[in-house]
Amino acid sequence: MLDKVLNARSVAIIGASKNKTKRGYQAINTLRADGYEGEIYPVNPKEDMILGLHCYKDITEIKSPVDLALITTPARTIPGILRKCGEKKVAGAIIIAGGFRELGDRGKELEREVVAAAKETGVRLIGPNTSGMINLKTNMNLVGIKNPPKGNIALLCQSGNMALTLITEATVCKHEGFTYYVGVGNESDIKFHEYLEFFKNDPDTKSILMYVEGMSQGRKFLQEAYETSTKKPIILLKSGRSAAGKKSAGSHTGSLAGIGEVAKRAYERAGIIVIENSDELFPVAETLSSQPPIKNNSIAILADGGGHATIAADLLTDYGINLPELSDKTKEKLSKILPEAASLVNPVDVAGGTDADPSLFADCARIILKDPNVGGLLVVGLFGGYGIRFEKSLAIGEEAAAHRFGAMVKKKNKPIFVHSLYSSQKSHALDLLRHYDIPVHDSLDISCKCVASLCKYGNYLKSYHAKTNFVFNWGARAKKEGRDIIENVRKEGRSALLEHEAKQLIKLHGAPTSVGQVAKTQEEAWQIAKNIKENVVLKIVSPDILHKSDACGVKLNLSSEKEIIKGFQQIIKSAKIYNPKADIRGVLVAPMAQKGLEIIIGTKIDEQFGPVIMYGLGGIMVEIMKDVTFWVLPVSSTSSRKMLRDTHSSILLDGVRGQKAYDKRSLRKLISMCSELIESYPEIEEMDLNPVILYEQGLDVVDARIILKDQE
Amino acid sequence: MLDKVLNARSVAIIGASKNKTKRGYQAINTLRADGYEGEIYPVNPKEDMILGLHCYKDITEIKSPVDLALITTPARTIPGILRKCGEKKVAGAIIIAGGFRELGDRGKELEREVVAAAKETGVRLIGPNTSGMINLKTNMNLVGIKNPPKGNIALLCQSGNMALTLITEATVCKHEGFTYYVGVGNESDIKFHEYLEFFKNDPDTKSILMYVEGMSQGRKFLQEAYETSTKKPIILLKSGRSAAGKKSAGSHTGSLAGIGEVAKRAYERAGIIVIENSDELFPVAETLSSQPPIKNNSIAILADGGGHATIAADLLTDYGINLPELSDKTKEKLSKILPEAASLVNPVDVAGGTDADPSLFADCARIILKDPNVGGLLVVGLFGGYGIRFEKSLAIGEEAAAHRFGAMVKKKNKPIFVHSLYSSQKSHALDLLRHYDIPVHDSLDISCKCVASLCKYGNYLKSYHAKTNFVFNWGARAKKEGRDIIENVRKEGRSALLEHEAKQLIKLHGAPTSVGQVAKTQEEAWQIAKNIKENVVLKIVSPDILHKSDACGVKLNLSSEKEIIKGFQQIIKSAKIYNPKADIRGVLVAPMAQKGLEIIIGTKIDEQFGPVIMYGLGGIMVEIMKDVTFWVLPVSSTSSRKMLRDTHSSILLDGVRGQKAYDKRSLRKLISMCSELIESYPEIEEMDLNPVILYEQGLDVVDARIILKDQE
Repeated sequence: MLDKVLNARSVAIIGASKNKTKRGYQAINTLRADGYEGEIYPVNPKEDMILGLHCYKDITEIKSPVDLALITTPARTIPGILRKCGEKKVAGAIIIAGGFRELGDRGKELEREVVAAAKETGVRLIGPNTSGMINLKTNMNLVGIKNPPKGNIALLCQSGNMALTLITEATVCKHEGFTYYVGVGNESDIKFHEYLEFFKNDPDTKSILMYVEGMSQGRKFLQEAYETSTKKPIILLKSGRSAAGKKSAGSHTGSLAGIGEVAKRAYERAGIIVIENSDELFPVAETLSSQPPIKNNSIAILADGGGHATIAADLLTDYGINLPELSDKTKEKLSKILPEAASLVNPVDVAGGTDADPSLFADCARIILKDPNVGGLLVVGLFGGYGIRFEKSLAIGEEAAAHRFGAMVKKKNKPIFVHSLYSSQKSHALDLLRHYDIPVHDSLDISCKCVASLCKYGNYLKSYHAKTNFVFNWGARAKKEGRDIIENVRKEGRSALLEHEAKQLIKLHGAPTSVGQVAKTQEEAWQIAKNIKENVVLKIVSPDILHKSDACGVKLNLSSEKEIIKGFQQIIKSAKIYNPKADIRGVLVAPMAQKGLEIIIGTKIDEQFGPVIMYGLGGIMVEIMKDVTFWVLPVSSTSSRKMLRDTHSSILLDGVRGQKAYDKRSLRKLISMCSELIESYPEIEEMDLNPVILYEQGLDVVDARIILKDQE
Repeated sequence: MLDKVLNARSVAIIGASKNKTKRGYQAINTLRADGYEGEIYPVNPKEDMILGLHCYKDITEIKSPVDLALITTPARTIPGILRKCGEKKVAGAIIIAGGFRELGDRGKELEREVVAAAKETGVRLIGPNTSGMINLKTNMNLVGIKNPPKGNIALLCQSGNMALTLITEATVCKHEGFTYYVGVGNESDIKFHEYLEFFKNDPDTKSILMYVEGMSQGRKFLQEAYETSTKKPIILLKSGRSAAGKKSAGSHTGSLAGIGEVAKRAYERAGIIVIENSDELFPVAETLSSQPPIKNNSIAILADGGGHATIAADLLTDYGINLPELSDKTKEKLSKILPEAASLVNPVDVAGGTDADPSLFADCARIILKDPNVGGLLVVGLFGGYGIRFEKSLAIGEEAAAHRFGAMVKKKNKPIFVHSLYSSQKSHALDLLRHYDIPVHDSLDISCKCVASLCKYGNYLKSYHAKTNFVFNWGARAKKEGRDIIENVRKEGRSALLEHEAKQLIKLHGAPTSVGQVAKTQEEAWQIAKNIKENVVLKIVSPDILHKSDACGVKLNLSSEKEIIKGFQQIIKSAKIYNPKADIRGVLVAPMAQKGLEIIIGTKIDEQFGPVIMYGLGGIMVEIMKDVTFWVLPVSSTSSRKMLRDTHSSILLDGVRGQKAYDKRSLRKLISMCSELIESYPEIEEMDLNPVILYEQGLDVVDARIILKDQE
């Protein structure tokens, strides 16, 4: 769908100029200098010729078809220009100008107008407030970055400066480059997920590199990423954590976890390789676009000195990667070619064995990569610098090793990574490695991150089919009785369900909960209580009293008639004091729950990702230790297994200090029930099951709160 | 004391050689090529002349004094050579050879022999198993690294390859270099703290850069670091976490926290800047050796684009650094020189304001640095590349700004940091910044880490005088009655104190605990219990039963005579079943503790750092959440305030969910009591106070266990 836009065969430059300092001049100049394969049409009512090209007064004057318009004029002119573009049936427009929503209300209004004009005319928009886009396959450079390197990475960026950084980095490494660059700008029309879909289908793009500050349709993006990441890797840096953290701190559940955590977990579930450190962004993308994923999460280290090996082993261990012991056979073979002092465990230390002939590195690599426990090899230390550091002639041996490394990677389908502190110096051996697409870095941190990313991607490819995707069939599994409850609440003009209504709704979908009955009088309360074999709890029922405890509206553990009558009276009295105008519907009489493990489950609608669910152990664990996890819905009973593992305190579910294990199966079912419920009733804004009491057998939702969305 | 060694005016090369591939040749060649200012004496019984120098048969033949011997011969020859060196009154020797403790038992024995020879002869040793040392002030290059850059950083390294990495990095940046490099090797004679003391007193060394895998006398090092770090910064990377973690997982308390955490906390308490990421090691050292510390933990960001500013703000926030809002005055002044679209909050975004004239960066910097809320400035983005990216002539404005940046830093004593994505390209403006000692990096991560380190060092310098140092006056505060308890235990050939003995000892030093009394008969038990107003607890007293519960040796909450008699009988019976040979001393009768908050405190002797203390909340918090902290002793009552803050669950001490606050003052006093106790009785190997019950007023040590060290 975006084909005509991103692969445009003709571009109109609206705001074309003869002034060399203007974007409208530079754009044309760059297109021609870079050898754009399509047609270029300058548009400016005041000019006749620009850079030897005929200049049109108006885009509608152009006779031939125009795929894309680059608009370089100021913000206020955009709506009018877009209508002209629509008339000309232009497929897309890039709006460079800033001055929209980032400037506040006035800008927002203008942006709305621009989006409306686009919708109306069918012109798709890149931007506004973007540095532009480049299609390196057709040399359509609409940004003006000089000599961007070509390659197989698609670059999708929410900051022009970050794009410049990454392109500059690629230029300096002179190794891998790009198929496309798109600056999404304000993302006001074409969204992240649409670009992603385009890159998924582009045969020349091997990996997708993204810098994101925030996105407007996170759920659609997640689903698209889920579908893309099994075909090609997506590498993403998310910034704006600190600002977003502040922003989200206002809402109750939001303050428990930075929104950053929700996003990171969701991205990873969609198979995206999330990068935290901007230095690692390009190297990881380069690695993932050229190397086979590591299938067994295991790596061997080959070193010519202790320090680098130790640091690398620490880092890889931190990343959760195995450094398996080598097989006896492997050790035996290594012992035959290495000195006695060499270490044959993993990391392997050659202990001077390569000093006289660095081609021995290749012999070691061959032996190690044959070991079935080993999924890849990281060489750390001085390789590539023996000819520089020691004796020029040693370079020959290094070059021989480099050729053999290249052949090995191809044959074994196991990646080799080289850390060399001579990476930035002239070393033919290292250039050979680069030729064979072997990642070479002088930073141990970056080398290890590249290893970790290939492991992560390999692990994902093995497990993705078991993961829930992000598709929500709104309303599909709603029940008539459930709809009735919600409609009744709406009819009364309320947004909060009463406790027993909420409990009825979740019970309808299979959640174990004692709903209880509402008593209007004290006698009725006693009649209900009499038929409950456990002691009972009394709770005020009033749409005007949501925080029942604050209004002294809860009495626990009552049994005798006297207690119940007295409890009823006290609750009604307190409620009237708390809020004299409260509409009191009665008192809920429900059985007291047995003691068990307190769990808290909640859902809310996240700004970016839509419905999310929170899970944690109640009490101190959630309030003090903030030991909770947030997942984007849906969550199936199977995938909730992993969700439970996300909190430290979930260990308590297995029974500790001699206790029996709790019923995790029921808990997982409850979580998938919540997912189903939110999917069934799109009216729900927030749901809190707090507490849920978990037992060795079964569970009991003791309190439930459901809030509906504001009606439009 | 090490002056004669590290500033040697004459060096004998033992194992001098004519063979170019031998270290004994290269060493002489390098010393002469680099222009060593002292005398060089080759020693080899088989040669007469080497490289035009007279070669001695034996070091004792040399007439003039010899300060230092570089020994390049194999391991087995070393003891004999050292004795010769002793005869010649050589101050120090560098032992290059490996083949000592790293090879196992046989090597260990040889190393012991070498150390003994050194002690005997008074020759101090660098190494063995070291790459050597360099004194760059006298060009005494005993390593053979070509052209190491001179500067003001002392480099102390436990890996030759890491030293090579750091020296290569310094060479590539061509900015800051070194005063000394020392490879500590096996650290078998001269220890880390001795080198540190030397560098502390060296007037040319401005900062000390260390790579450490492990050290043998951690406590002495901490104390030396504590005394050094207020004079010059120490920057340290500790590796070997993963291996060490495995190693320490065996011991009980050790398994709760990787030893790495103990080390990191202790290093930071001693004022050391601890680096986790090897890429940051050199840049941080360079920054700390040239920039004034940031006094108020606050920084402003100045950016020419959103992306870099957002990433930097995230990183600095993660590091706990303030990004204060600028004053109204500052904002007003900025608004006069920047475009309307510019962001004047912190980060400041010039929004194209510098496009026409990048010297505006300096105007902004001047205004921002004047703001009293701001402790330093981080410029992020394209500075230094305007002349490359846009228009050559813009370089002039950048150069003008660079000169003004240099003047500002000098005048205001507030640092400026520049992140520029053109850092690795030729930019005169960036070279000017480097000339003015302004840190320039193309990595946002590294720039932010440099900022963070200057903040951390500034914060330390403000607070260090309140920190406890690491000096232990073993035995100084012991009491006669305490010594008697321990001597009595020793006399009986025991290593574990009985519960009541342990409680008597801690009570003697002021810990609130109900010792109770030992009853030998059931009647005696009742007599004791009668006089206790609370219910009582009975516990078996036997040196052969340390885990009392395992032997069913504890009965809780008894009051009546019948209960107590029966309890006594059951305990004795169970104990005899548990261990028929057990020496049963009786049953301890003590009052039951009231309910309160369970705390666990323990001490042990750490291999590297000596006595350490562990604190945490009991039960789930320690067992499941591993929410404990380890500190190196001593800890004063005042400094324990910070220790309490180290665990998340300590929030419970302040009273949550409507509870009153617990008596933190008593808890802090108990911690300092533990510190005093360990200091007083060097015989103690381990102490566990578990549980300690904390109340709103006061506390009660309910159980205490003390184990003595093995006697030699």
